Amino acid sequence: MAILQPLVDLAAICYAQGVRHVVVSPGSRSAALTLAFTRSGRFKLHVCMDERSAGFIGLGIAQQTGVPVVLICTSGSAVYNFAPAVSEAFFQQIPLVVISADRPKEWLHQYDGQTIYQSEIFGKHIKRSFEFSADYGHADVLWAINRVSNEAVTLAATIPMGPVHINVPIREPFYPASGDEMVPSANLKIIKRQSAEKILAPDVWNTLLDEFEEYPKILIAAGQHLPDHELSEVLNKISEEWDIPVLADSIANISGLNIIRNHDLFLASKNAGQLVPDLLITFGLSFISKDFKQFIRKNPPRAHWHIGEEVFLADPTQSLTRTIPVPASYFFKNLFEKIDYKLFTENADPETDSAFLRNWSASNAGSEQIMHDYISNLSKLSDITSLDLLFKCINRVFQLHVANSMSIRYINVLDIGTNIRSVFCNRGTSGIDGCVSTAIGAALVNEEETLLVVGDVAFMYDRNGLLINSLPQNLKIVVINNAGGNIFRMIDGPSGLPEIETYFETRHAFSAKRTCEDSSIAYFSCREPELLESSVQAFLENKAISLLEIFTDPYENEKVWKELRRLGREQ
Amino acid sequence: MAILQPLVDLAAICYAQGVRHVVVSPGSRSAALTLAFTRSGRFKLHVCMDERSAGFIGLGIAQQTGVPVVLICTSGSAVYNFAPAVSEAFFQQIPLVVISADRPKEWLHQYDGQTIYQSEIFGKHIKRSFEFSADYGHADVLWAINRVSNEAVTLAATIPMGPVHINVPIREPFYPASGDEMVPSANLKIIKRQSAEKILAPDVWNTLLDEFEEYPKILIAAGQHLPDHELSEVLNKISEEWDIPVLADSIANISGLNIIRNHDLFLASKNAGQLVPDLLITFGLSFISKDFKQFIRKNPPRAHWHIGEEVFLADPTQSLTRTIPVPASYFFKNLFEKIDYKLFTENADPETDSAFLRNWSASNAGSEQIMHDYISNLSKLSDITSLDLLFKCINRVFQLHVANSMSIRYINVLDIGTNIRSVFCNRGTSGIDGCVSTAIGAALVNEEETLLVVGDVAFMYDRNGLLINSLPQNLKIVVINNAGGNIFRMIDGPSGLPEIETYFETRHAFSAKRTCEDSSIAYFSCREPELLESSVQAFLENKAISLLEIFTDPYENEKVWKELRRLGREQ
Repeated sequence: MAILQPLVDLAAICYAQGVRHVVVSPGSRSAALTLAFTRSGRFKLHVCMDERSAGFIGLGIAQQTGVPVVLICTSGSAVYNFAPAVSEAFFQQIPLVVISADRPKEWLHQYDGQTIYQSEIFGKHIKRSFEFSADYGHADVLWAINRVSNEAVTLAATIPMGPVHINVPIREPFYPASGDEMVPSANLKIIKRQSAEKILAPDVWNTLLDEFEEYPKILIAAGQHLPDHELSEVLNKISEEWDIPVLADSIANISGLNIIRNHDLFLASKNAGQLVPDLLITFGLSFISKDFKQFIRKNPPRAHWHIGEEVFLADPTQSLTRTIPVPASYFFKNLFEKIDYKLFTENADPETDSAFLRNWSASNAGSEQIMHDYISNLSKLSDITSLDLLFKCINRVFQLHVANSMSIRYINVLDIGTNIRSVFCNRGTSGIDGCVSTAIGAALVNEEETLLVVGDVAFMYDRNGLLINSLPQNLKIVVINNAGGNIFRMIDGPSGLPEIETYFETRHAFSAKRTCEDSSIAYFSCREPELLESSVQAFLENKAISLLEIFTDPYENEKVWKELRRLGREQ
Repeated sequence: MAILQPLVDLAAICYAQGVRHVVVSPGSRSAALTLAFTRSGRFKLHVCMDERSAGFIGLGIAQQTGVPVVLICTSGSAVYNFAPAVSEAFFQQIPLVVISADRPKEWLHQYDGQTIYQSEIFGKHIKRSFEFSADYGHADVLWAINRVSNEAVTLAATIPMGPVHINVPIREPFYPASGDEMVPSANLKIIKRQSAEKILAPDVWNTLLDEFEEYPKILIAAGQHLPDHELSEVLNKISEEWDIPVLADSIANISGLNIIRNHDLFLASKNAGQLVPDLLITFGLSFISKDFKQFIRKNPPRAHWHIGEEVFLADPTQSLTRTIPVPASYFFKNLFEKIDYKLFTENADPETDSAFLRNWSASNAGSEQIMHDYISNLSKLSDITSLDLLFKCINRVFQLHVANSMSIRYINVLDIGTNIRSVFCNRGTSGIDGCVSTAIGAALVNEEETLLVVGDVAFMYDRNGLLINSLPQNLKIVVINNAGGNIFRMIDGPSGLPEIETYFETRHAFSAKRTCEDSSIAYFSCREPELLESSVQAFLENKAISLLEIFTDPYENEKVWKELRRLGREQ
């Protein structure tokens, strides 16, 4: 057996289990891992020397493909730099296989280079942590390495998906000799895991249908969810045919004419009392809308079902009464088919039922009108007016990525039009640490163009993702540069503090221009409202990777956002 | 009691326990912490929005001052971005007090924003993890918060020093109202920890002295150690008066005419057999020199004492026979005083004894000559010729910071002259992830000028440290830009691989120029050997923060380094 054979086999098992993309951060201890994956000739490899960004590039790829992405790094603190992406992947349920090279365990805490406590290093933010033995002499060790290789990749891809870690201590010599071939073992054992579907038994359905029919006012609300055309379609039908309001955050990726999406503007209004449901049905992961969560916390429905294959009991609205651990698409399709529509509508009082939807729709439409009227009367350049115009100018299909902090709050209220077919944001941990790299990862594997909306702080934070060996040319980046962490002016609390500029906003004069020049990214900028439209057009027409930086005034942004929120609350 | 009083008191306790510097990364949940420290008016605050760099800035400050530095961040993945600095601080024994804001624990895994498993998040890389209760209603809770605040800071500063973590869940409202004063509690309880010295009892000394006198060939070897003038002085005396060679890596900060420091050039030579000691006495943390470690592993001495207040049993040379847990300065000063010099030299065979030192000194001097002859005949610009000239040009005192990877290997063999009074490198984990920020932190608190030598990859990796609110003007940075991770050509193994440029070196065309422009750093560069001296002079003469980027050829660097190593081995 060649000395590094188990690592060659690990790569072959990853391929057999469906892995196609590998993100490599260079290292010496990890050389055999890197070579096992490159020399297989079957993977698409991406190279980024900053592990923090590399981790999010892998996350962006896995988010799009739904298939585990392998991350490779060397030993030492390199592994820790993956931690922000690993924790995001854990809470956002994205399949990653982190493979870290390590020194043999006997060198732990011996003041030898790049040796830290790598076993279990990701704590609770990992589905499971595995480790190879550094010595391949015993047959049981080889059996375990093969089994663990199979288990790790399949576990990452098992719903709820998530990150796994394989720590791989490697003895010297860890470079193959020049004549060494790296060929997988003959008869390499692949253990397939059959996919199985979760469904509900007939008696469970009967219980649920009975309860469902009890409640005159039903609200469906969608948190973060991958785009699912069939799910979107059945929810639109349910809303139309059963007069049930369906509320969806932008990252829920549920679209349709009747979908409620301006809830962030009206749920804090004094008239929201008439919108309280008897039965709330939620699905998806996190909700962006704090107002939605607080509305439900303050006005608990009589029953609250959550649909989704979670293993943790999450109840962000403090109102759960039932969890239904099946996929949302299965649940709503079957709900729609099983309920006798006529019976359902005949039994109920049509007036009351449709009144509930009408109230929601009226609030939604009213908010849209208020927002439209307000924005169209603004003449200065601000975050809101810039983004509003940007989306009006978009004349072809994009996938939208949005950074955390203010960007996603804006997107969750603005009309982003119908050319945006899907929206992604790292709401697992809601950090700003990987927004750029996640979009890069997505663009690398997307046929369609990718648009990233990001603030100046989140952009600077994660600019090392742009050091990837080959940038995707189908990526467009809009940096809203308000000279600091403008969010601290928007939220209650810090805006009146004397310390705000120095210790919260961290006001700066940085621009993305030179970072673009460093990475050969076409750069466009705008500081004047009258030039915005032409800047946006030029930016959108550019065929290669490009970045538009819009400089806005933090005080104007504060004024506009607070006024828009006030108008929403007072409708 | 004001609602945030325990946090105000935490800041007051930190001050009373000696903390003077605080590095803040902005956040909302952490606002009360930030305000408690700023409004105290007694701390020097530094603001960096990227927690990874902020962590290393704090580490750089604590490394210089020897006093705990407080790091403040908000909840979520922000905390994880401190992990690389925390692990470095753990292995390099640098006192940090990480204070992370958190949501109240009941919001864990509830898909609420910026909530991850923050308790014990640093795993084994922390001296201890503490946590406040979010509710201050019970008297015992207040007692515990006070006690923990006292314990955490004193523990960080207790030898062996290191990082501690206080996780602080904070309930809303977490901003003070505009009229709220943030004044520490009257009669705030401060628990002082008396410092105590470790010494050896007379009978222990007798045992040691008896053993010491048994061995004719004694070698003292110093790993990473903070500058200590008295220690340096006594070691020079021991070497001179007792004919004992003292070997010191550059980061041992032991200087003197007789100190052996070219060991990286001659310990792999075939004549090294005559250099094997009977008794090896080591102190300090890690050794840079792999050849030294391997030399001792291959030629184990009859006895090996390690001096230092460690709690872990580290034996990187695989030769330990005795650990002596007292400070090195105490040990060597007492050793020198207690041994009857005349008796010692009379008992021994003066010829044999001095022969051992002469062999070491001859190897050291021979290597210096070989290196000098070789370098002075090189005409092309390379890493080695550039650094050699740089140190020849330095005409005033600097503190030197060196990045990991090739930079520190170069510094460990080159003659850096007598104007460099101390040398620092992050050899706890030997990562490249915080080299720039550590130097920034050091410069912030140093009276003297700080010089950083860093490769292009390590510079790019950690450039976000330059986003600090106020850059120190006494910092000079030399970037050796060899267009990628040149180290992979230098070490055995990867240099012959067809994959080297793409997957190891990650060859690039980035320059530090635009990053300097972004941060208003004076930029100098050089690509031609004949212009190097004038570039270095201009760079050194600049009064403000400045950066010199020297572009070298990776193939030339490989040739020069390997030839220098060959010449050393063959002497």
